[in-house]
Amino acid sequence: MQISARNVLSGRVKSVTYGVVSAEVVVELSGGEEIVSVITKRSAEELGLSEGKEVLVVVKATSVMIALE
Amino acid sequence: MQISARNVLSGRVKSVTYGVVSAEVVVELSGGEEIVSVITKRSAEELGLSEGKEVLVVVKATSVMIALE
Amino acid sequence: MQISARNVLSGRVKSVTYGVVSAEVVVELSGGEEIVSVITKRSAEELGLSEGKEVLVVVKATSVMIALE
Amino acid sequence: MQISARNVLSGRVKSVTYGVVSAEVVVELSGGEEIVSVITKRSAEELGLSEGKEVLVVVKATSVMIALE
Amino acid sequence: MQISARNVLSGRVKSVTYGVVSAEVVVELSGGEEIVSVITKRSAEELGLSEGKEVLVVVKATSVMIALE
Amino acid sequence: MQISARNVLSGRVKSVTYGVVSAEVVVELSGGEEIVSVITKRSAEELGLSEGKEVLVVVKATSVMIALE
Repeated sequence: MQISARNVLSGRVKSVTYGVVSAEVVVELSGGEEIVSVITKRSAEELGLSEGKEVLVVVKATSVMIALE
Repeated sequence: MQISARNVLSGRVKSVTYGVVSAEVVVELSGGEEIVSVITKRSAEELGLSEGKEVLVVVKATSVMIALE
Repeated sequence: MQISARNVLSGRVKSVTYGVVSAEVVVELSGGEEIVSVITKRSAEELGLSEGKEVLVVVKATSVMIALE
Repeated sequence: MQISARNVLSGRVKSVTYGVVSAEVVVELSGGEEIVSVITKRSAEELGLSEGKEVLVVVKATSVMIALE
Repeated sequence: MQISARNVLSGRVKSVTYGVVSAEVVVELSGGEEIVSVITKRSAEELGLSEGKEVLVVVKATSVMIALE
Repeated sequence: MQISARNVLSGRVKSVTYGVVSAEVVVELSGGEEIVSVITKRSAEELGLSEGKEVLVVVKATSVMIALE
């Protein structure tokens, strides 16, 4: 699948925390930074997410803000 | 300002493309990856964004998706 | 790519309207409904979107609201 | 209420799963496709969502991505 | 229409700026604060938005961040 | 931090409801309106959110919809 979202970054799962509806997934990017994602619990299960798994982090450009320190 | 968005990554502006309402900003993260953001033209002007400027990229965790190659 | 977004629906492009930064894409779903998407102009070009092209519409569950008539 | 969100599709609730803060709602569109939404638990209760209820699915155009298989 | 979005605030249009695809709408809330919205140009036209018009501002709870000064 | 999000409104926390992954935060704006936010539980804890605390509500313009009664 080629997707319109402009941000597709590779990384590795560091942790998955399951709630009832949602799941919080922490991914370490290949550049070393950490990205936190909240997806549905069902998606996390269907993707078989677990520590060490290689994944892509996908973010639509309109969801990205810019700030100055 | 300390913000609830879990993803706050530092980087440097590579380019800014202005539309009438929006602006597309490409940022190179310190880890080397590129992130694309679409914000309002007014915000880009008020932040004084231009090539080489050090910025922060801010993304709410609920905006981040996970995928498998 | 298998993605965590829970809504992946197939359809066909009806129209693409280009702005400077954004592009508006109207897709007819196989069920007959119309979906409107706004993505970056660059993405629309890179996906080679044009009338009649078969595409997938992808929406994260947290972006979907429910209403009563 | 007439809303700026360009995607307002009718359907019927298939299931509602309650968490502590969120609720996952699966809706079958009149075209036959399934849409998954995550809203707050409180909203799901206030809308009185239950299996079989006729609802509208509302999505802002900027939340919709396009992909190629 | 009763909608799951938890934030529905009344106000009055202060200005509308049209781009090719998008439109920026500034609304003054009854409490005096200003809210800026970016919707599609087509939506702004269909809602007949112009200075002084009474409107509702609608925001899904998952789109709202919290920060400390 | 100066952020591109065009909506930064001051208010006071009315309540915080914790789930496993998420937290629902209700804020009373200085203008008297109530805003509901869903952020991650971890963010709510790290910001030390509790009733009466002065906070800022931050919303990106592209997340704001406009409606007519």
